[in-house]
Amino acid sequence: MPIVLLSDFGTSDGYVGAMKGVLAHLAPNVPVIDLSHQVSPFDLVQGGLLLFQAYPYFPRNSVFVAVVDPGVGSTRKAILVETQDYFFIGPDNGLLSMALAEQKVRRIVHLTNRKYFLEPLSATFHGRDLFAPVAAHLAQGLAAEFFGPELTGYERLPAFIPKFSPEQIRGEILHFDRFGNAITNLTRTFLQRHHHGPELNLVVRDRTLRGLRNHYAEAAPGEACLLFGSSQLLEICVNQGSAAQLLGLARGDEIQVPLS
Amino acid sequence: MPIVLLSDFGTSDGYVGAMKGVLAHLAPNVPVIDLSHQVSPFDLVQGGLLLFQAYPYFPRNSVFVAVVDPGVGSTRKAILVETQDYFFIGPDNGLLSMALAEQKVRRIVHLTNRKYFLEPLSATFHGRDLFAPVAAHLAQGLAAEFFGPELTGYERLPAFIPKFSPEQIRGEILHFDRFGNAITNLTRTFLQRHHHGPELNLVVRDRTLRGLRNHYAEAAPGEACLLFGSSQLLEICVNQGSAAQLLGLARGDEIQVPLS
Amino acid sequence: MPIVLLSDFGTSDGYVGAMKGVLAHLAPNVPVIDLSHQVSPFDLVQGGLLLFQAYPYFPRNSVFVAVVDPGVGSTRKAILVETQDYFFIGPDNGLLSMALAEQKVRRIVHLTNRKYFLEPLSATFHGRDLFAPVAAHLAQGLAAEFFGPELTGYERLPAFIPKFSPEQIRGEILHFDRFGNAITNLTRTFLQRHHHGPELNLVVRDRTLRGLRNHYAEAAPGEACLLFGSSQLLEICVNQGSAAQLLGLARGDEIQVPLS
Repeated sequence: MPIVLLSDFGTSDGYVGAMKGVLAHLAPNVPVIDLSHQVSPFDLVQGGLLLFQAYPYFPRNSVFVAVVDPGVGSTRKAILVETQDYFFIGPDNGLLSMALAEQKVRRIVHLTNRKYFLEPLSATFHGRDLFAPVAAHLAQGLAAEFFGPELTGYERLPAFIPKFSPEQIRGEILHFDRFGNAITNLTRTFLQRHHHGPELNLVVRDRTLRGLRNHYAEAAPGEACLLFGSSQLLEICVNQGSAAQLLGLARGDEIQVPLS
Repeated sequence: MPIVLLSDFGTSDGYVGAMKGVLAHLAPNVPVIDLSHQVSPFDLVQGGLLLFQAYPYFPRNSVFVAVVDPGVGSTRKAILVETQDYFFIGPDNGLLSMALAEQKVRRIVHLTNRKYFLEPLSATFHGRDLFAPVAAHLAQGLAAEFFGPELTGYERLPAFIPKFSPEQIRGEILHFDRFGNAITNLTRTFLQRHHHGPELNLVVRDRTLRGLRNHYAEAAPGEACLLFGSSQLLEICVNQGSAAQLLGLARGDEIQVPLS
Repeated sequence: MPIVLLSDFGTSDGYVGAMKGVLAHLAPNVPVIDLSHQVSPFDLVQGGLLLFQAYPYFPRNSVFVAVVDPGVGSTRKAILVETQDYFFIGPDNGLLSMALAEQKVRRIVHLTNRKYFLEPLSATFHGRDLFAPVAAHLAQGLAAEFFGPELTGYERLPAFIPKFSPEQIRGEILHFDRFGNAITNLTRTFLQRHHHGPELNLVVRDRTLRGLRNHYAEAAPGEACLLFGSSQLLEICVNQGSAAQLLGLARGDEIQVPLS
């Protein structure tokens, strides 16, 4: 099963290369797949969303290594989470929490067994020295319990958790994709559970967008619209244009869905 | 044989990762190669050129999946083109046409058989739900005719087709590469067929460039020059500089090669 | 053993794709790993540093193909360097010299045997036509001596070589990584050999930074600090900020470490 890499390391430095070297060394027959290394530096929300969008398409027992890690070298924990389908490895800072919210968690392991780290362990680059070697050993068949003691929970990012009252659902814009679509934290499942009105409307920056489309081309070119994107998250989009630019939206903008 | 991916998805979103997940799931033993995901959004010319420049170097029976798809979810067709050497999969919007112009087309298939798509098929992300699974099944050995009925033609992009009269050839600048070289739509073969004068000159933005060089270093640093680039397309270049900047050129600029 | 690719080709053009096609064609069972293609155009220092940072983590006998090649088509030599651990292939312009300085060189070969090049050999794209096919044949087991005659030396980049006098060590800033850390050309080994005072101080742009930290989080947010980065190079950093911006530093800035 593949090892799948996600990071904010970019590809202009040697960081990703060094991680791949460790994997090629310790797990030479395991395929390594780049999910992305272009997460904005330290951006846990973008990284967590990206993992959420991609992970369900990978085969069972894939090992995800996600490293967006502003607290590297501090007291934040390094964890391995085993779910009914996958393994997730990364810092315990909320990065994994949007994906994990959908999975049945079997075991959370605090990665403390230095036997499976590189020696010496640097203080600044756990992607190479800790997360990559643990992933390599795991992909080779070593069971999760060898890597350290169990934990009872993991950190969750508040941005991934929408709020609701009897009057409205309140969410936020998590990310603009490359095409300028604004991706929100409202899933189709969440909205179906809480919104029963005839038409779905959304308020953002004092503008109301009305009704759901099925795809971008249903809107006129340049027209703003709402749809569930390919990951079943509600998106604000503009057909053949950038919702970010044309509607003046920003990351973290609050959105409201009236319920009455 | 490998599956080769080209798209305008960038690597800051989860789109490429999800496609790779589908391929790892459905064709776990097939190598997947990234040609590029940095085509500018919706830019069929850049995408088609990039495919043209790279495909001939891949082994026979490689499966190219090219997704630059502004019309996703609308009525544009999804196609598979089998040539004497390769398989090309993508939207029927001209993206494949520069590469196909050089290949002997054996069969064009309209991808309609939902048995080989992901279920449910999203309206916005055919790269993941339609093109990737079709590529996976094809790379596993399923014959092209299983994917849908045959078509008699495919879309061609006008930008890839130079014009000529007895007095001159008229082409255009398709793309600036990373080094600022202006890549035109004039192939060596096309020019050899139509241009028989002693020296090849080119007019762009009222400036005449005279004579062909063999490589960049033949020109003085900063000097503008003409040469056939590594894909046998005529390029306007500046040794150790950017032709785009130094000559004030733009994508789509008309170029003329006098014939008399 | 893998073939590892490093270049300044970017991923918006077809260059990397064409190289990968050649490798898939000539060495279909050899894993190909992207170290990076985002080296700034023609930037030998960045490319050489990136190779230095990543290569020691790869398994023995890995084949590194590094192409940052402003002199392509001119008289610069194409070389293959066999060390006690690895093979390095690229132009002889100093790009390989920071990595090679740490390795025991066994043999330097001038790549002249056209039997192992693509035919015709372009004047502008040796990555595809010369370096990739040589790497493929080497990774398939062909011995280094088949590719051409031996050389007695290779080019070294002056930027990688710090200077010292009894009073001070003088080095320079080689690169800013994605997080804004300034990476210098002073290795831990070099400093340990020449600096014996109680505390390590560094002068840059008339500012003195005092004392070494172990990791970024040891400094207060926004505070400037010194540490040995993950490749054992001295770095100027700002915790959760960009040293480049906050200290107004530039590539090539001289740094001084007082010795008395």
